[in-house]
Amino acid sequence: MSLIVQKYGGTSVADVERIRYVARRVTACRQRGDDLVVVVSAMAGETNRLLALARDVAADPDRRESDVLVSTGEQVTTALLAMALTHGGCPALSLLGHQVRIATDSAFGKARIRSIDDGRIRAALAAGRVVVVAGFQGVDDDDNITTLGRGGSDTSAVALAAALRADSCEIYTDVDGVYTSDPRICPQARKLDRISYDEMLELASLGAKVLQIRSVEFAKRYAVPVHVRSSFTDTPGTWVVEEEASMEDILVSGVTSDRDEAKITLLRVPDQPGLAGRIFGPIADANIVVDMIIQNASAEGTTDLTFTVPKADFRQAMGLVERLAREIGAAGVRTDESVAKVSIVGLGMRSHAGVAAKMFRTLADVGINIQMIATSEIKTSVVVDAKFVELAVRVLHDAFIGGAAST
Amino acid sequence: MSLIVQKYGGTSVADVERIRYVARRVTACRQRGDDLVVVVSAMAGETNRLLALARDVAADPDRRESDVLVSTGEQVTTALLAMALTHGGCPALSLLGHQVRIATDSAFGKARIRSIDDGRIRAALAAGRVVVVAGFQGVDDDDNITTLGRGGSDTSAVALAAALRADSCEIYTDVDGVYTSDPRICPQARKLDRISYDEMLELASLGAKVLQIRSVEFAKRYAVPVHVRSSFTDTPGTWVVEEEASMEDILVSGVTSDRDEAKITLLRVPDQPGLAGRIFGPIADANIVVDMIIQNASAEGTTDLTFTVPKADFRQAMGLVERLAREIGAAGVRTDESVAKVSIVGLGMRSHAGVAAKMFRTLADVGINIQMIATSEIKTSVVVDAKFVELAVRVLHDAFIGGAAST
Repeated sequence: MSLIVQKYGGTSVADVERIRYVARRVTACRQRGDDLVVVVSAMAGETNRLLALARDVAADPDRRESDVLVSTGEQVTTALLAMALTHGGCPALSLLGHQVRIATDSAFGKARIRSIDDGRIRAALAAGRVVVVAGFQGVDDDDNITTLGRGGSDTSAVALAAALRADSCEIYTDVDGVYTSDPRICPQARKLDRISYDEMLELASLGAKVLQIRSVEFAKRYAVPVHVRSSFTDTPGTWVVEEEASMEDILVSGVTSDRDEAKITLLRVPDQPGLAGRIFGPIADANIVVDMIIQNASAEGTTDLTFTVPKADFRQAMGLVERLAREIGAAGVRTDESVAKVSIVGLGMRSHAGVAAKMFRTLADVGINIQMIATSEIKTSVVVDAKFVELAVRVLHDAFIGGAAST
Repeated sequence: MSLIVQKYGGTSVADVERIRYVARRVTACRQRGDDLVVVVSAMAGETNRLLALARDVAADPDRRESDVLVSTGEQVTTALLAMALTHGGCPALSLLGHQVRIATDSAFGKARIRSIDDGRIRAALAAGRVVVVAGFQGVDDDDNITTLGRGGSDTSAVALAAALRADSCEIYTDVDGVYTSDPRICPQARKLDRISYDEMLELASLGAKVLQIRSVEFAKRYAVPVHVRSSFTDTPGTWVVEEEASMEDILVSGVTSDRDEAKITLLRVPDQPGLAGRIFGPIADANIVVDMIIQNASAEGTTDLTFTVPKADFRQAMGLVERLAREIGAAGVRTDESVAKVSIVGLGMRSHAGVAAKMFRTLADVGINIQMIATSEIKTSVVVDAKFVELAVRVLHDAFIGGAAST
């Protein structure tokens, strides 16, 4: 008998019919003899509906109250699923963040889980119940409701699996696994059977929106095997697991793209110690995540400094950068919002030379100019003109992964 | 500086615009220097929407989960009102039942408040905040969410006022006070300035749906002055207060009617000790509230037993009664669903003879036949054919209260 944590996302519980379907699915698993903890998201669209209400009453809604508001989305599905299970002969108990006691810090809207009390869940499991836990929410030391940020239900599920030492964590979603690339861009993309935590981290951070990045970090830290799969079929999906020796044989596991960044260049900044800190300190203080940074020192003692920020933060970043440019004596600021990042990810890069070179050559062969380059141990990213993004993904997928639809 | 508990019902917070209006109203009160605790209901229609979802997933939804579900309605308005207040420059804090710690028993769907911890509310008030409390909800000893039953937000408000020893409890609703009768039935009805708890209890239990009956019991027990008034005007409403000597001068304070009952008669039951217990025990066990009971013993050692039950419970009651009728040897069962109860209520009845007689005569004068009679210290009720109910209310109002639109 195993203990399995299952998580069903918003599209899997989008309406009453799907909730009943999930209940039947959970019941079938339970009948096979496993102990089950089921984490649910809000019905698809519900969180946005609630946030729209908030914006209607207050231009910049209080963050604590915003969490009180949006956490009702998960509370509703949690109750409905528990009802549907019990009604169908599979006794269930719903638990909210404060009832489990999923303790977090007090960063409303993006809280981090500190600890999970497994007492009440274990008691309910021992009593033969399926436990349905509201995803995305926790509680701080002062009993305030907190939420974990968008996609936080993945993190709830993995953290619960870790706390309960579950045998696995199944993430049910509307895709049937992790693909080598986005099938909408690259028809050759195929589903991966297994992928390492590190590769998944890079893919998640690069815009493959299958799993929230923090949930992968959690899974890695506590070695929780995560099975990403579709709630609409019984086909196995993709296992996200600890690194295995054989994984290094594959040079590139995935090709991803991200159109969500904008590029900012500070021109001819006087090059002096502490420059980067002066520029990126205020940007970090404004909670803007800078992704790629490139600095080219010139002979004349000035340097061009280029970096990318999320498009959503572009306007705010520019406000800061224009002031900074004057202060530090830059010759000007140049921006480009029509850029995209294309990346290849694979454990094999660690031990095989020439992967980056092959990437640049492949792009050059089809006439794509590379604007920025960043590399890490298992990833190489380039920034290109946004209009080339689909082409870049396809040629890189062809070059490194190929078109064979094997599994 | 006073401490005032205000309660806004579902129609007062029906949409974002009205929530903003309530926020402005609360802010204005706050600016006059009073400490404020504001209790809110769910947006009008929300509780029914949630219950419909529940019935869609389970024919007979688990009661514990049903409370988890419907309590989100108040959670949403609580958060939205707190946001609107803070945004408008009036710092506010929302608190849910488990955060205040409104401790109840575990009777899901109709829980009773046992105690209220005033610590967190007092701390927030001392910090200069308006405290917005979710009505209708509490928490049991095992940290399960409970709800207090329909209209429970009134009870939340009065119980909070009692626990905080508030100076008054203002119940904002869509009517501007308590009337001598239903103005839709009786155009002569006029608003009462003051009414005693006991009269209000009788009026509430008789179908005047202005205040939940349990809230009035609470108000009476803890002597909380309750001010029922409209959220749409500044006109004073009706004060529900402790009895005053002058109140006895008024024979009848109100005339009410209730169409929500059905009549059941067990014919020629063998009259023997313990009969009533055998009949009403199983009905009480099924949680059906029997209102009026009349027993007429005949000469032949049998008795006819007539009683009324809420129409909603009629079918279930009949299932029990038909089985009982066979068991105890009754000659048959007769039912009537088109009956209505008409009542007059007034403290003056205690000291003035002849009020009931005048009531019967008034009805006889217009040819209305009385089917059942029940009296208490400050109330006389009759059951009549439902088609006469408006007529009965009007002639009784004319006879006892009159048409003068004084006050």
